[in-house]
Parts: sequence; structure tokens; C-alpha cells
Amino acid sequence: MAVGADGVGIGLIGLGTIGTGVVKVLQRNARVIEQRLGFPLRLVRVADLDLDTDRGVDLEGVRFDSDADGLIADPAVAVVVELIGGYDAAKRVLLRAIDAGKPVVTANKALLALHGREIFDAANRRGVDVAFEASVGGGIPILRSLREGLAANRIESVFGIMNGTTNYVLTEMEQTGEDFDVVVKRAQDLGYAEADPTFDLEGVDAAHKLTLLAAMAFGAELTFKEIPTEGIRGLAPIDFEAAEEFGYRIKLLGIAKSHRSDAAEERIEARVHPTLIPRSSLLASVDGAMNAVAVTGNAVGPTLYYGAGAGEMPTASAVVADLIEIARELRRGSARRVSPLSYLPTELRPKPLLPLGELRGPAYLRFTAVDRPGVLAHITGVLGEFEIGIESVIQKGRARSGQSVPVLMQTHPAVELALRGALEEIDRLDDVTAPTRVIRIEEGL
Amino acid sequence: MAVGADGVGIGLIGLGTIGTGVVKVLQRNARVIEQRLGFPLRLVRVADLDLDTDRGVDLEGVRFDSDADGLIADPAVAVVVELIGGYDAAKRVLLRAIDAGKPVVTANKALLALHGREIFDAANRRGVDVAFEASVGGGIPILRSLREGLAANRIESVFGIMNGTTNYVLTEMEQTGEDFDVVVKRAQDLGYAEADPTFDLEGVDAAHKLTLLAAMAFGAELTFKEIPTEGIRGLAPIDFEAAEEFGYRIKLLGIAKSHRSDAAEERIEARVHPTLIPRSSLLASVDGAMNAVAVTGNAVGPTLYYGAGAGEMPTASAVVADLIEIARELRRGSARRVSPLSYLPTELRPKPLLPLGELRGPAYLRFTAVDRPGVLAHITGVLGEFEIGIESVIQKGRARSGQSVPVLMQTHPAVELALRGALEEIDRLDDVTAPTRVIRIEEGL
Repeated sequence: MAVGADGVGIGLIGLGTIGTGVVKVLQRNARVIEQRLGFPLRLVRVADLDLDTDRGVDLEGVRFDSDADGLIADPAVAVVVELIGGYDAAKRVLLRAIDAGKPVVTANKALLALHGREIFDAANRRGVDVAFEASVGGGIPILRSLREGLAANRIESVFGIMNGTTNYVLTEMEQTGEDFDVVVKRAQDLGYAEADPTFDLEGVDAAHKLTLLAAMAFGAELTFKEIPTEGIRGLAPIDFEAAEEFGYRIKLLGIAKSHRSDAAEERIEARVHPTLIPRSSLLASVDGAMNAVAVTGNAVGPTLYYGAGAGEMPTASAVVADLIEIARELRRGSARRVSPLSYLPTELRPKPLLPLGELRGPAYLRFTAVDRPGVLAHITGVLGEFEIGIESVIQKGRARSGQSVPVLMQTHPAVELALRGALEEIDRLDDVTAPTRVIRIEEGL
Repeated sequence: MAVGADGVGIGLIGLGTIGTGVVKVLQRNARVIEQRLGFPLRLVRVADLDLDTDRGVDLEGVRFDSDADGLIADPAVAVVVELIGGYDAAKRVLLRAIDAGKPVVTANKALLALHGREIFDAANRRGVDVAFEASVGGGIPILRSLREGLAANRIESVFGIMNGTTNYVLTEMEQTGEDFDVVVKRAQDLGYAEADPTFDLEGVDAAHKLTLLAAMAFGAELTFKEIPTEGIRGLAPIDFEAAEEFGYRIKLLGIAKSHRSDAAEERIEARVHPTLIPRSSLLASVDGAMNAVAVTGNAVGPTLYYGAGAGEMPTASAVVADLIEIARELRRGSARRVSPLSYLPTELRPKPLLPLGELRGPAYLRFTAVDRPGVLAHITGVLGEFEIGIESVIQKGRARSGQSVPVLMQTHPAVELALRGALEEIDRLDDVTAPTRVIRIEEGL
């Protein structure tokens, strides 16, 4: 019996790092979970293609084979946990479980950001729950907070540090002064970065998470592909030095804001890129592999949620929280208590993204220019033509005659399109020897 | 009809600051609430003794009188919100509503910390919900996070800045160098402190909140009266200067930790007092009237929740979040989905508090001693006898011969009882002219 007096039966597909963590949490914390829930969560079946690796967990009494379809169809399984990752197989698992009328728990942000609509639609039609707290912010209960804790608010903005790998790399680059490649290599050695860290370093993982957060915050349809995304490759030690001198730290932020006016329809600002935020802000204090997400609501004002954004046990903490919630609903026959995307499915709207070019804000600029009298005058002249004011400038050291030096600058708030126009012209100047690096400056929280 | 196709009927008792905020949130955010919930929350009746003051809200269509009992009995009212504060009348309202089988929402931490058992027991027997998210951390969804988001964890500690008034006073004292009384007066003028701020300044309000957090974190019975509580009165500008030189900031923290060993039963450490925490910690960056609560779970690790800890709209945000949740349960007939105190009522245990004297940690000491050769040797000699090591010492300025000066010291970790013994002896020295001020040092988060 999948749901009975003796508990609720769990089937787990994918016994990798997170899956193993889920087994550990279910086992180690079985007593405290039952003290809260009133009945046990019983892991009855696990499926994985690799049946041989020793994961250091005891699966006695649990059926363990490679038959995912059998697991989904098994009447002893009341809830299916998908932790295989990737797109095709994971999607097949989720849709098949939903089709079988079984609620699903997943940590797969990539799949939901790209194919969420199909999955959520199927779950709506079938009337089953899709829970995915572990997909954003690891163990931080950020989705629950957005969906229930702040449910009385119109959400104005969601932004923060959503990727632990990049935050680790940025923190290390800042603290050691080492180059990007050196730090990435060490992050891989230490297990903070995957063998292929492209998704993390290019900001794609953060954009997946921001897609889900923005949809839930604003009742908008998932629009991953439209989110302008820029990674942390290309940042140099000198950018961290300059940021410090200007009073900032560099963080990869995912940022989503609602823009409303009485005249026009609501538009969503969404973007992922390295950002300078004031050293005194809370987000600036979030170091290493930790994550933090700030949410501002029109009643509650600014709030922030901080914790481990990844890792075996933190992520498992979120998966098992979802299992606890679903088990409660199953026992009471009250599935779909809350809409997975916070708004009722019928209320989700496609909301246009605000073009990046329209945004206005200050920026940090790193010019690479030949160290020659008059160069700074040329650069500032072009900026002036585009009406971009300068807050401060640092010129580091001096090169031998004719060689290039970095010129570091903090601008006043400027419209992005004007800034791009100015930089295009500046990068064509004879004395400017490499493309100018732009990092946007945000206020942080 | 209290619960029907046209919504769920809300009755609000107490139209003060928070009550007025609840009316505003229900009105201004009616549309977004309905987009999430699928039906409206309808404010049908308000009771308050003061029917004359203009609160700047439109109560057209809402029955507004001073008849609280009539409101509770009104068949149009499905949920009762108690926002009158205080003990006796508020308790009567809550028990009467529960007795009438109606779920209640309150922000009254003082009442729950002192008389919670009676109220929760009544609600358990009657099978109705008691929701109180607004009672801790204002608009921060900290109780929900503890109860549901972290439900898969054994909670190891809960600590943080739980009182906005004291945090405002501490922040101002640090930034301006002004005396306690001057800053408190300004806080009152600006509305950050009440006319009688005793409960806030003495740490009592923080202890009320810690009582609720500790009960929910550890499945312990509410033990407000046993929590050692020390306020911020007596802190002097020089303490803030010394804290800065030692690398710390001063915050009033509520701290609760679980102490377990295989041999002995679980004991709870709980205390409220001014604390030195490292400047680089997240909690140290929480300024002004903001709150932040850190929760560490055995799976998720450290997490933190930040936001406005008080105020009309933030607190109303939490009250209306509770209303949304209860409305969902009422429509589905699934009341008491989650236990109010996180653990099933049958699982709550009286858990002994660890005596403060057994705790071990570093401390900041401010001695007041005559500026005479040999004084420091006397003081350090006594500390040595009690095996208390010294990390660093600052002696500020010099007094005219025979006058007293402050001697500021940071100790190595020491057992509290030993420290008290040493200070008792030191304070009896002829050269020590005022009682020594102790502020404990914690690691923060």
C-alpha cells in the first residue's frame, strides 16, 4: 500500500550525489520527520543504471534495480523523485509518473526552465503535484517562501547569487588575485566545479533558476531563452582590485524585476551577469559556494534568504521537504493545495521582457589603451558625446612607451544603449587596443 | 456564507497599526491574492473599541463595531484575526474563537510565549488552526521556513536579531557615538521605539520570540520564564569603539541551540543578550530596524532569513499569508495540515535548559579601574587564577592621577561560571571602581 497507516511509499530514480543524500536524510532524520508528520516516509524502491557503485548507504529492504518504468508503475510507490538530471530521460520519467497520477519531486532546473510548460500542463491536467524546491537555491526554502510566505505581496523584484560554483570562483579570484583559469582548475579539483563547468561559468545555470523565480514572482510564462545571460569568463584580477577601490565586490547575479506603469502593460526585466554591488550590502557578504536570493514585495519590503545553494545534503534537505509536503497532501487527499508556479495555471501570462538596452544604471568600465597623453581625453570625450557622466577613474601603473595599460572607470547612471554606442566608438579608437569590459553596477541589498 | 464560491470571510479584531495594515494589504493586493488562491479573501467584519479615529482605509461594506464577541459568533466570519495585543482580552478572543471552531491568526508573541500552551491545547482539542507567522520576524517567513522548508532536518540552532527597536538603537549608537538615552529618545520620536520601550530594550520581546522559535525548532515546550535575558541598557559608546577595534559589532541576539550527547538527554541552550559578532558575518551587516534569523539544520547546514521585523505593512504581509493558507485549508476541509509548533502536539517534550554557567565562549570585558601602575597586573592575575586567557587588551587614554579609566579586554574561550567567579573577585579590588561589563562573543553567521 503506497499511502497507508504505515506511511507513504517513495520511489527514487537516480542514485547519484543528490539521490544518495536523499536516502541519507530519509534514514538519519526518520524519527524527527515522523515527529512532525505523524507517519513515516518509506523509501520502497530505487532505480539507477549503475547498480554496482558503493554509495555508502544501506538499501536493505529497498528494491533496487534499473527499472525506472517498473518503479513508476509499482503500486507501492506513491511519490516519484526524479534525480537523474539532463533533459530527455528525466522528462520521460516526469511525464510518465504524472500520467500514472503520481506526484513528482525533482531538482532539475534545466529541464523545468526549458520544458516546464509541458510538464506543468500535464500535471495540471492530471491534478498531481510537481515539487521542485531543490531546483533553486539548494536547501534554501526560497520557492516555498515566494509561493506561500510572501503570497500576500505583489512581488517587485527577485535577485541574487544563484550559482555556487561561480560564487566560489569569484570569491577565490578576489582573495588570491589569481587568474580565472587557475581558480576554475582548483574549483574542479575541490569538487566545487564539475568536469565541464560551462553551464555554471557561462551563467546558464543561474538563468535556469531565474526563469523559475521570475515565473513564480510575476505570474509570467517561462522564458529562459530570452534572458540575456553573461558569465564570469573574461574577468581579470584587476577588475577585483578596481572593484575594491571603488567600494564594491563582484558577484554573478540573476536579476528579475517587474516594471509597471498605468499606461503600459507590465514588462519583466530579467538578466544574468557579473555585477558590482556595494561592499556593505548583504549580498556582498555571501562568500564561497553559498547562495542568497533577495525578494522584495510591495507589503513586506526587502527580504533575503541565504544558505548552501548546492551539495548532497542541502539539496536533499529540499527534496525531502517536498516529500513531506506531498505526503501530507496524499494522506488528506488534498493534492495541488498550492499551484506549483505560485499563480493559478489559468493566471500565468506571457509577459514581454524589457529590452536590456532600455535599462539605466551605473557601470564599471575597463578600457585597455596605449599609455599616451590624450588617450583619457579621447575616451572621456566620446562618453561625453553620449551624455555618460564619470564618477571616478583609476589609471594603474605606467607601461613602457607605446604599451597598453588598463583604465578603470565608474560611470554615473546611463542608459545601456547609449553606453553600448559609446563603447563601440571608443573601441574603434587607435589608442584602444582591446575590447572594453563592462560590468554593471547594482545597489544590492 | 463564511466559506463559499465567493470567497472566505475574514473577521478582524483590533484596528491599530497592524490591523490597518491588514486591511490595506487585503484591499491593495486583492487581485494578486486571488490570482494565487483562486478565490477572494473577503474582510466582512472589524471590531475595535475606537470607532472614531480615521485610519485612512475605506471600510465600506465591512461591518465595523466594537462587538468582538459578535464578530466571533458571526456566521459570515470563517477566520478570526486577533490584533489587539496584550494578554487578557487577546487570550479571551483567541479561546472564544477556537471554541467556536474558527481558526485564528495572531501576531501576539507575548501571549503565545506565556500562555501558548493553553491556546495550542485548546486548538488541538477543537481541531482548528492557530497561525502566528507575524509574531516572529515581522514579514519574514521564518516560522513557515522552520516548520515546512526545513522539515527534513534535525534543527541544531536558531539565533539572530529578533527585535528591530534594539537593533536600531545599537546601529545608531555605533554610528553616532551618542549615549543610550539620547538614541532611545530619538528612536521614540521617529516611531522606532514605543512610548514605553522596556520590553524591547530589556530583551523581553526577543525572548518571547526565541521561546516560540526554540519550541518549534526542538519540539520543546514553551519555557519563556526560564530564558536568561539581558537587554542593551548599560552599553556605552566606548563598548562600540572597542568592539570595532577588536573586529566586531554589537547586536542583541536571541540564541537557542540543541545540546545532545549519546549519554545524556537533550538539553536546550537559550539566551538573549548583547553579543559581539565578527564584522564580516552576515548578521553584523543587519542594520537599523531590520531582523535576521539564522537556522542551522543537520542536512541543510546554515541558512539565514532577513527582512523587516516589524512595521505596519511587513507584519500585515505575514498575517495575510496566514489567512491565505487557512483559507486554502477551509475550502478543502483539510484544517491542521501542519502542526502549529512544527512537531505533533503529542511529540512536544519539556526539555531542560542548559544552565548559562556551563556555557563556554570568549567574552569582551570592560573594566573601570583607577589609572595606576599595577592595576592591569592585578586584573590579569585574577583572570589567570581562574584560567581565563587574554586575547587582547586596549587601554584608552590616561586619566588624571587617581581617576578611573576603562580597560577593554577580549578573552579566550572561558566557562561562564569561571568568568563570573573571576569578575566577582576583580570587582572587589580597590582599584576597580565600577562593576565590570561583560558582553559575550559569538561567531555569528
